[in-house]
Amino acid sequence: MGQHSKGNLVIIGGAEDKYGDSRILQEVVDIIGGDEARVGIITTATQQPEEVGEEYRDVFLRLGVRETEIININTRDEANHEDNIRRIRDVTGFFFTGGDQLRITSILGGTRVYEALHDSFHHGTAVVGTSAGASVMCSTMIVEGNSNDAARKCTLKMAPGLRFLEGVIIDQHFDQRGRLGRLLCGIAENPGILGIGIDEDTAIKVYPEEYFEVLGNNAVTVVDGRSIKSTNVSELEPDEILTITNASLHILSRGYGFDFKRREVITIH
Amino acid sequence: MGQHSKGNLVIIGGAEDKYGDSRILQEVVDIIGGDEARVGIITTATQQPEEVGEEYRDVFLRLGVRETEIININTRDEANHEDNIRRIRDVTGFFFTGGDQLRITSILGGTRVYEALHDSFHHGTAVVGTSAGASVMCSTMIVEGNSNDAARKCTLKMAPGLRFLEGVIIDQHFDQRGRLGRLLCGIAENPGILGIGIDEDTAIKVYPEEYFEVLGNNAVTVVDGRSIKSTNVSELEPDEILTITNASLHILSRGYGFDFKRREVITIH
Repeated sequence: MGQHSKGNLVIIGGAEDKYGDSRILQEVVDIIGGDEARVGIITTATQQPEEVGEEYRDVFLRLGVRETEIININTRDEANHEDNIRRIRDVTGFFFTGGDQLRITSILGGTRVYEALHDSFHHGTAVVGTSAGASVMCSTMIVEGNSNDAARKCTLKMAPGLRFLEGVIIDQHFDQRGRLGRLLCGIAENPGILGIGIDEDTAIKVYPEEYFEVLGNNAVTVVDGRSIKSTNVSELEPDEILTITNASLHILSRGYGFDFKRREVITIH
Repeated sequence: MGQHSKGNLVIIGGAEDKYGDSRILQEVVDIIGGDEARVGIITTATQQPEEVGEEYRDVFLRLGVRETEIININTRDEANHEDNIRRIRDVTGFFFTGGDQLRITSILGGTRVYEALHDSFHHGTAVVGTSAGASVMCSTMIVEGNSNDAARKCTLKMAPGLRFLEGVIIDQHFDQRGRLGRLLCGIAENPGILGIGIDEDTAIKVYPEEYFEVLGNNAVTVVDGRSIKSTNVSELEPDEILTITNASLHILSRGYGFDFKRREVITIH
């Protein structure tokens, strides 16, 4: 956790196990500092911040963290409060709950809390998010799109994300909601971006700019668009079906990971 | 339609438009012989053969075929009847309705009707199927598997199909039911097989052993497993999530096709 070395990210595809052996959240606790951990639970995404915040507080305390801090920021004003900055600076890791990713970015984007979050992250503090809290990790995030549908021009809504991880698009609840089509929309628009679809109760632990490792019980789907030979995304009318040829597809489970630079699957020991 | 040249196949992903411009079924009518067409509607897959048969009869007559013959074979005995063989020999194309693909194979497999079907097909008669009628086209067909789930060991049930098209696994209702996971199960087990996922109201027109062309309004997903570098499918316990690396993925819409031998996307003019 040296100065100016980024913290780990744990990006969870939603619906992580909270009451069983809680593999993913236990790993989160270990990363954040185990019995020394002070978890900042950021409930900005949800409109039930108290219920959601308290649920995670109970789960994290059961999993052995020292302390939790529910950071319920609901307005941009609050996101500039000195008090909230202090709370951000005071924790050893952040946990973004699910809800609506646009609430996170529209309330936090460009505020002092946002700067404090990035500052902490760049000094080694871990950042964790689930569901909407997973989507916001990217520079360009998925806001809305069709589930269980083919890739279709202009049906994917994207917006600038919190930018903890560059060069990727994250999608969540991936296989459970049939979201290959919508992830491919994003990849077709810029095949240089790596598409990462994370299933429910599944996560990636990211060593920024280096690699990620799969955690949890389902799969992570990686679409590498760099091999794409052709796509007609720029020629179509809205709602037409995209054509994409020669994308590279990887399906990864626990024990595997992916090297961001080499764009290669790796085995984790 | 020379002797010993296979007929075309039209393989439809289910839910094809019947009452609008009926693009796919109109193409089917053209292939089968237009106003000279005598369509044999094979209702073996469904347990409502009369309703389903009559619905397609009305649609085909509206689309301009000369004649329809509802071939309702419900038992293996019936599949050996001289009368049914004669009806099979008497039509210019076959249309397999949806329903349960195991009904088709368990009732027709190895019967005289099955032989007559293959004989006609090998003499140039077109064969068309939708939904369950699409799945049965392959040598090894998908019978059952999880929708909206990751690829998971042993969750895919396969069975020998009618073998009109070799070297592929067809899945239907593909994006609409989130079936990438289950198609990948099959591909992981034998990456030499080409996986073809066909969306609803979408079809492939197959020139056997040569190429297919996409018809209809949604997408066809092709997974080419030959590039797979590794998969752990043989090492896992049942229900564990598969890992597959470096599969090649193509998303194709109308105007595109795929060359079976070169394993290459082609443009259709």
